[in-house]
Amino acid sequence: MIGEVTVPGIPVATVARLPSYLRALRDLVARGVEKTSSVELAELSGVGPAQLRKDLSFLGSFGTRGVGYDVGSLAQYIADALGLADEHRIAIVGIGSLGHALANYSGYSQRGFHLAALLDASPDVVGRDVAGIVVEHVDALEDVVAREGVSIVVLATPAAHAQAVATRVVAAGVKEILNFAPRALQVPTDVDVRGVDVGSELQILAFHSQARALAEASAQS
Amino acid sequence: MIGEVTVPGIPVATVARLPSYLRALRDLVARGVEKTSSVELAELSGVGPAQLRKDLSFLGSFGTRGVGYDVGSLAQYIADALGLADEHRIAIVGIGSLGHALANYSGYSQRGFHLAALLDASPDVVGRDVAGIVVEHVDALEDVVAREGVSIVVLATPAAHAQAVATRVVAAGVKEILNFAPRALQVPTDVDVRGVDVGSELQILAFHSQARALAEASAQS
Repeated sequence: MIGEVTVPGIPVATVARLPSYLRALRDLVARGVEKTSSVELAELSGVGPAQLRKDLSFLGSFGTRGVGYDVGSLAQYIADALGLADEHRIAIVGIGSLGHALANYSGYSQRGFHLAALLDASPDVVGRDVAGIVVEHVDALEDVVAREGVSIVVLATPAAHAQAVATRVVAAGVKEILNFAPRALQVPTDVDVRGVDVGSELQILAFHSQARALAEASAQS
Repeated sequence: MIGEVTVPGIPVATVARLPSYLRALRDLVARGVEKTSSVELAELSGVGPAQLRKDLSFLGSFGTRGVGYDVGSLAQYIADALGLADEHRIAIVGIGSLGHALANYSGYSQRGFHLAALLDASPDVVGRDVAGIVVEHVDALEDVVAREGVSIVVLATPAAHAQAVATRVVAAGVKEILNFAPRALQVPTDVDVRGVDVGSELQILAFHSQARALAEASAQS
C-alpha cells in the first residue's frame, strides 16, 4: 500500500501544501482520530478536496473508497516524503526582536527540527541565554555550522547584513536558507531560499483589498 | 494554477511578486539611482529578467528599449497597483513573543501601512505599552476595529485561539487577515487570508534538502 517516494515528480506547489496536510493530520492524531475523509482533511488544511486528492496522488495511492484515509499512516508517509525522518539542525542568525521570537517558537521538535545554535553580532546579545541556548558571535558562523551539523539557517538579520551573512552561510556548505530579512538574496542555483517578508505579505493583502473595492464600485455603477 | 486571476486581471503569482519589485525599486530610489534595466531589477528582486518583464506587462507598458525603466515612476506605479495610495490600518491580535516582534517591525509606514492597535487576552500584557501602543483587551476587538478603521488584522495568537478570533475579525467587517498561527482558518470566500507558518517553511526546505541528497546518491550509483 505504501509506494516509493518519487521526489523529483512532485510539483513545487504540491510540496508547499504538504506541511498543511501534515499539520492537520497530526492534530487529528492528537485528538485520537484514526480515519479521515478527503473532505474533512481538505477543510482542516484550508484547501479544496479536489486539490487535496490531486496532491496526494503525486505521493502514491492512499485511502479506501468509502472508508477514507488512515490518519497515522498518511501522516507518517507525508513526513517521510518531506524528509522529516532525518533530523534537521537549525541555526538562527540575528537575535533581535524577530530572532528572539523565532528562537522561542515551540514547534521545532514536534515538526522534525532541532534548534542547534543562535548567532548575533551585538555584544548586547552574544553570551546571553535565549530559549535555553547561549548566543554565539556571528564571527564563529563557520565553526558553529560544522560543530552542530547545521543544515538549515534562518536569517533574521537587518536587511543591510543579510547578503553578507548568506554568502558566508553558503560558503560553509549550507544549502537551505529561510530568509526573514526584507531583501532578495543572491545565492548559487543549488541553494534553496524561502523568503518570508511581513511587508510583502501586507502589500499583497492591500492589493486584494483595493481589487475588492474597485469591483464593488464597478458593480454599483 | 493557470487561470487563477484576480479582479483587475493580474495573476495572483504576479501580485505576489510585485512587493519584491517595489522593495528593490525603493532601495534604488534611496541610493539616488534614476534608471534601471530589467536585468538589474530582476537580480535585485530575486527573479529572472523574463519573469520580471512578463509580470510588468500585466500592469502596462514600461521602459524604453536601450534606456530601461525610470525608477521613481515605476515604483509609484507599482505602489498604486498594490493599493498603497490608500492608508491601510493594521491591528495585531496576540502580543506574545511573535506579536511583540511584529509590533516592533519598523517597516510599516515606509511600506504603506499604519499600525493602529494591539490586542491580547492576557492580563500580563493588556495595558502595557508595546512599540508605543497600549495593548487593549481582545474583548474590545469589534470596538477597536470600528474606532481605528482597521482593514487588515495580523493574527499572532496560539493555534487554539486563531479560529475563534478570526471569526470575530470577519464579523467585524475585516476582509484581510495575515495569519501567523499554525492552523488553517475557515473564512467566507470574500475574505483573503495569507498564512505564514515557520514550521511549514522549514518543512518545505527539508523536502528540498532530501530531494538533493537523493539526487546526489542516485548520480553516484
